[in-house]
Amino acid sequence: MGTSYWSLWVFTFQAIFNIYDLLLHSCFTPTKRSTQVNAPMRFGLIGTGRIGQVHASSVARTEGAELTMVADVFVEGAKKTAEQYGGVATAEAMDCFDSSKVDAVIVASPTATHLDLISAAIDANIPILCEKPIDLDITRVDAMRDKAAKASIPIVLGFNRRFDPHFNSVHQRVQAGEIGKLEQLVLISRDPAPASKEYLAVSGGIFRDMTIHDFDMGRFFVPNIVSVTANGFNQFSSEIKELGDYDATSVTLRGANDELVLINNSRHAIYGFDQRMEAFGDKGMLRVENLTNTNVRLYNQTSAEVKEPYQNFFLERYMDSYLLELAEFMKKVRGEASNSPDFEDGRAALVLANAALESSQTGKTVSVSV
Amino acid sequence: MGTSYWSLWVFTFQAIFNIYDLLLHSCFTPTKRSTQVNAPMRFGLIGTGRIGQVHASSVARTEGAELTMVADVFVEGAKKTAEQYGGVATAEAMDCFDSSKVDAVIVASPTATHLDLISAAIDANIPILCEKPIDLDITRVDAMRDKAAKASIPIVLGFNRRFDPHFNSVHQRVQAGEIGKLEQLVLISRDPAPASKEYLAVSGGIFRDMTIHDFDMGRFFVPNIVSVTANGFNQFSSEIKELGDYDATSVTLRGANDELVLINNSRHAIYGFDQRMEAFGDKGMLRVENLTNTNVRLYNQTSAEVKEPYQNFFLERYMDSYLLELAEFMKKVRGEASNSPDFEDGRAALVLANAALESSQTGKTVSVSV
Amino acid sequence: MGTSYWSLWVFTFQAIFNIYDLLLHSCFTPTKRSTQVNAPMRFGLIGTGRIGQVHASSVARTEGAELTMVADVFVEGAKKTAEQYGGVATAEAMDCFDSSKVDAVIVASPTATHLDLISAAIDANIPILCEKPIDLDITRVDAMRDKAAKASIPIVLGFNRRFDPHFNSVHQRVQAGEIGKLEQLVLISRDPAPASKEYLAVSGGIFRDMTIHDFDMGRFFVPNIVSVTANGFNQFSSEIKELGDYDATSVTLRGANDELVLINNSRHAIYGFDQRMEAFGDKGMLRVENLTNTNVRLYNQTSAEVKEPYQNFFLERYMDSYLLELAEFMKKVRGEASNSPDFEDGRAALVLANAALESSQTGKTVSVSV
Amino acid sequence: MGTSYWSLWVFTFQAIFNIYDLLLHSCFTPTKRSTQVNAPMRFGLIGTGRIGQVHASSVARTEGAELTMVADVFVEGAKKTAEQYGGVATAEAMDCFDSSKVDAVIVASPTATHLDLISAAIDANIPILCEKPIDLDITRVDAMRDKAAKASIPIVLGFNRRFDPHFNSVHQRVQAGEIGKLEQLVLISRDPAPASKEYLAVSGGIFRDMTIHDFDMGRFFVPNIVSVTANGFNQFSSEIKELGDYDATSVTLRGANDELVLINNSRHAIYGFDQRMEAFGDKGMLRVENLTNTNVRLYNQTSAEVKEPYQNFFLERYMDSYLLELAEFMKKVRGEASNSPDFEDGRAALVLANAALESSQTGKTVSVSV
Repeated sequence: MGTSYWSLWVFTFQAIFNIYDLLLHSCFTPTKRSTQVNAPMRFGLIGTGRIGQVHASSVARTEGAELTMVADVFVEGAKKTAEQYGGVATAEAMDCFDSSKVDAVIVASPTATHLDLISAAIDANIPILCEKPIDLDITRVDAMRDKAAKASIPIVLGFNRRFDPHFNSVHQRVQAGEIGKLEQLVLISRDPAPASKEYLAVSGGIFRDMTIHDFDMGRFFVPNIVSVTANGFNQFSSEIKELGDYDATSVTLRGANDELVLINNSRHAIYGFDQRMEAFGDKGMLRVENLTNTNVRLYNQTSAEVKEPYQNFFLERYMDSYLLELAEFMKKVRGEASNSPDFEDGRAALVLANAALESSQTGKTVSVSV
Repeated sequence: MGTSYWSLWVFTFQAIFNIYDLLLHSCFTPTKRSTQVNAPMRFGLIGTGRIGQVHASSVARTEGAELTMVADVFVEGAKKTAEQYGGVATAEAMDCFDSSKVDAVIVASPTATHLDLISAAIDANIPILCEKPIDLDITRVDAMRDKAAKASIPIVLGFNRRFDPHFNSVHQRVQAGEIGKLEQLVLISRDPAPASKEYLAVSGGIFRDMTIHDFDMGRFFVPNIVSVTANGFNQFSSEIKELGDYDATSVTLRGANDELVLINNSRHAIYGFDQRMEAFGDKGMLRVENLTNTNVRLYNQTSAEVKEPYQNFFLERYMDSYLLELAEFMKKVRGEASNSPDFEDGRAALVLANAALESSQTGKTVSVSV
Repeated sequence: MGTSYWSLWVFTFQAIFNIYDLLLHSCFTPTKRSTQVNAPMRFGLIGTGRIGQVHASSVARTEGAELTMVADVFVEGAKKTAEQYGGVATAEAMDCFDSSKVDAVIVASPTATHLDLISAAIDANIPILCEKPIDLDITRVDAMRDKAAKASIPIVLGFNRRFDPHFNSVHQRVQAGEIGKLEQLVLISRDPAPASKEYLAVSGGIFRDMTIHDFDMGRFFVPNIVSVTANGFNQFSSEIKELGDYDATSVTLRGANDELVLINNSRHAIYGFDQRMEAFGDKGMLRVENLTNTNVRLYNQTSAEVKEPYQNFFLERYMDSYLLELAEFMKKVRGEASNSPDFEDGRAALVLANAALESSQTGKTVSVSV
Repeated sequence: MGTSYWSLWVFTFQAIFNIYDLLLHSCFTPTKRSTQVNAPMRFGLIGTGRIGQVHASSVARTEGAELTMVADVFVEGAKKTAEQYGGVATAEAMDCFDSSKVDAVIVASPTATHLDLISAAIDANIPILCEKPIDLDITRVDAMRDKAAKASIPIVLGFNRRFDPHFNSVHQRVQAGEIGKLEQLVLISRDPAPASKEYLAVSGGIFRDMTIHDFDMGRFFVPNIVSVTANGFNQFSSEIKELGDYDATSVTLRGANDELVLINNSRHAIYGFDQRMEAFGDKGMLRVENLTNTNVRLYNQTSAEVKEPYQNFFLERYMDSYLLELAEFMKKVRGEASNSPDFEDGRAALVLANAALESSQTGKTVSVSV
């Protein structure tokens, strides 16, 4: 294990320490802030649901970031969030595109609003971090594609899992050549339990709502995908079946160099949020298993090495990745080197989701070019 | 974890102890043998290559079993094996079907001979344990199907992995309901390195030669398969590509109750023989990871919890399962309850392999009924 | 696993979530702070070395806490810390005992100053969180014992490891009876590398400087210790040997009910900071192993399941426990129920350290009563 | 990881494969045996209790070994064993020292008979493998010491754990320098449950009966021990307390180069037979954890990564080590290089046990020279 190996560890550790660093330096007394030469980056937040709360807290915990505008059509939600994390509450999303008050916008409102808000951000020349998926309708996305390509502002898609320290460490080590040529990527992603029927009904289906994360993760490791083969299953939920949706999937993506990306989903997993990755190359394999809150193990008469159940859902499992996603977005806003996924990444994930849906319905492999 | 849980452990432990038991009681002095009321079961072995050796040693290590006839067209191989494990050497396979000298036959000769030897066993009324695959040509298999169905002797196929103590324990625990309804079975099987080009050229291709084990394992857990979707890949071996074969695969089997069996293969794995299983149900999940020869772990300046490389290939990984396979076959010969896979299991695995090949070539899901 | 078991998990999870909660709510805009009904707790910090920095950052990251005074005889250190985390810098420790500016004091100055500062805190009626050890001289500690006992303010000792989420979870589960009667506690604690010779020369020796944490952890689980048997070793450091100190130890504490606390130390460990615990009872065992920054594992030609080296030292390993220690101290300051260790805990750890030193020098078990 | 590292793996693998090899070649047809140029080694077995059975089965499973004489004062036991594993049954131990019928003797009779049987073996010039402990009375051992030293036959003590593939692999890797200078050896050994009161009453006490294995293991890694410090505990068994014995211990051995051997015992462990080792050096650490029969793990609503309980006791845990112990003894009988522990090893373990008992009773460290 020579020098290059060590530089890798340093690399990885730095990624980790960035979190601590962000946390350690994320809080300032008013005095200190006033003495800053550079003013903090002012954020507008659109949408104050579950994900909106996560972004608000990320901004609050990040040094050099400030929440100045909070918009939600349910203005009470906006008020409550503003009260907790700062900023002025409004019912009007467009208030966030006022460059005298906001330097960058985070969009956590319903999917149907995403493209319009991206468009508004381009018009207002304000950088935007937009939650996934970019939209459920590829025609609408493609209609915006040119405008997005020509935009001078950063348009960043919220594929936060790219920034998870564990998955990101695998990516860095693969890039550094530690496992040689990447041949296979196995992603097992199972939610602890299905969302409500109301949510599912407008979710766009499992491929566009849930597998979308895995499609992006697949492209994070294998950017050029040439075909999609998918199967959908109805294993446990009559509700989901009635919606014409699947509750489990298997998907095979083929990369341009015959890489295999294998995805397996279920809408439930009794042991918690199941988020695993395996990168297999000709020189080795890197794997990420699930996380528990402590590393305590129990040994007794009926069993050995018993761990607690896994971290239960994304707020818990991906808390750090949301924070690091914001840090990366801020780099891009400042014009620094950044790995933030962009409009085209958002589109590509949707293209793959659509191809998977088609494949699962026709029983045929679907060619794509992303 | 109530009473039923405990009975499960007992169940599992018994399976394990059977191995020890077999070993502990597998050797007898001549004196003892002569006082036995029941004579030992006399075995004929056809084929003395790598797998033939394993079977010969299994017979030698098993109480109540005796090798009396060893056949190989390369008669030197037969002689060497007979010298080590007992029996009379012959170049003529048909010599093994002499019921005055042999009570049961084990076939470890090339695939092309399997059906004829099964036919001969039926004619001679001698029970047969035949290595997989049953044949590479489904028409030939189907031509024998009726005769096999009407045969009064046990015809057992050598899907030894069903008897691996780890996989078998998962099967028993799934059967006992420990994880509720089985929804998904994930099988990751990667060989340490490809066989020789000569072997590969006559192997019937990856699906019929290598994935065949996973097809049988899938059916061990989900007997009724209704469709097969497969992709083949050429990731690293130009030799294999030139043969028109794949060096990696992903396969999705759909069960009659929408169960998902997900198979992933590679013809190489630098870290050793990769043989994993994951059974996922609505009440829990059971997993088998790979095995090392000792459980020693190293901790040093560059890494922690380092294990040795995995057991390198099937002789090492599945030594116990061959022994248990033989024990189960002997039960069947004696007319006792037995879980040995039969002719139809051998045919079904071939049907699935053929369907996988077709699917990988046409890009279409193939319906099957096995 | 009945209801009580579940309540345990809830218990544990709450401990974990407290960290997230502290982090999530630890940052406020000036606006928000001004609208708070309760003013933040104002902290004075004495000592701005490595540990002082940790405490300053903990205060900065904690909601309702504010750093208002920072003292260090090296006033440049105080200034730098104040600039980063807030507060007024001073060279004079006594400036921190001004109740018009400070509600509570944290002492991170050299050990020799601890007792005087505790005394000053009592006189000023200001709650104090003082780093370990309380002093190196038991006579001096005992001279202060009465005054401390009569003090109306909280005097808290900085045994932060009690608040480590992993060890604390074991403690809670032991208290809840999960492993029955606690019989044995095994603590393996090895530093990654020895401190500088200068530090070691004034450290009071390995028992009072390093093992002191294990003595307190032992008492956290087994409060009444009746005897100490210790051995000291010189295994690798000639520097430490020249100081008349040991670089490795084994210690056996006997509890009043014949509990066994087994401690093993080394001043170096090439694989990182080694901090393990094993609680053994008549109904089961709970263990904590070491932590890595990610859970990525590597598999290659020479090894399997390779993890990164362990977290390297206490700033990394115990970051969370310092934060939770502060939260617990604040509860005590507010008069709420709190598990903070106190003056007597600080004294008891020193008594055990002294007994261990005596035992290691005389080769005799030493009776104690703490 | 250079060449020397690889040679280590090869080393380890060979140790493992030796087992398989022994098993694979351990059974012969009568025909074959008669054609052997070298006659098998003929064994006499004295004592047919639990351990006697293990040795009988080891002989039966070993190529080139034959059980020809079985002695037990309870002649029915001898008869039953002879019937199962071969040989002539007798009530008279001395019948085993007839060199016309026996080439080597294995002693598994009560401890009190060991020295006399060793003496008889020397007189008869027949190699002997004698179970531990050598005796409970050091005066009696020392009285035999000279005779043993002058004996021309191998006198081997049954410290089988030295041959456990896991512990032995650690020993080989330590010898090969993989962790640098060995500084600490931590042995945690806990029986699943205490033996019967009858057995315990004549066992010689925990140090001479149970810890004796750990004393030998300590000396396997650190041959020269200079002092012993021990504590005994009465934690759970009133029966054991009434016998004046302990049910738990902690022992510190000091090596001549200030190595630390730390031993921790309990007479019970609800999760199974607890047999762990940790070798700590200045370049790394090697650890052996407990074993389960399968590597299946369960994940459900209340817990994750659940393994089965550990292998329950020594017949299960150390089955392989008894077989390898016999193989090593046979090498010694044949005059080949061998690592079998001898009379002096048996004496040294008793010296350490006596010193531990004295230390636990006096509260003082006891100097030894072994």
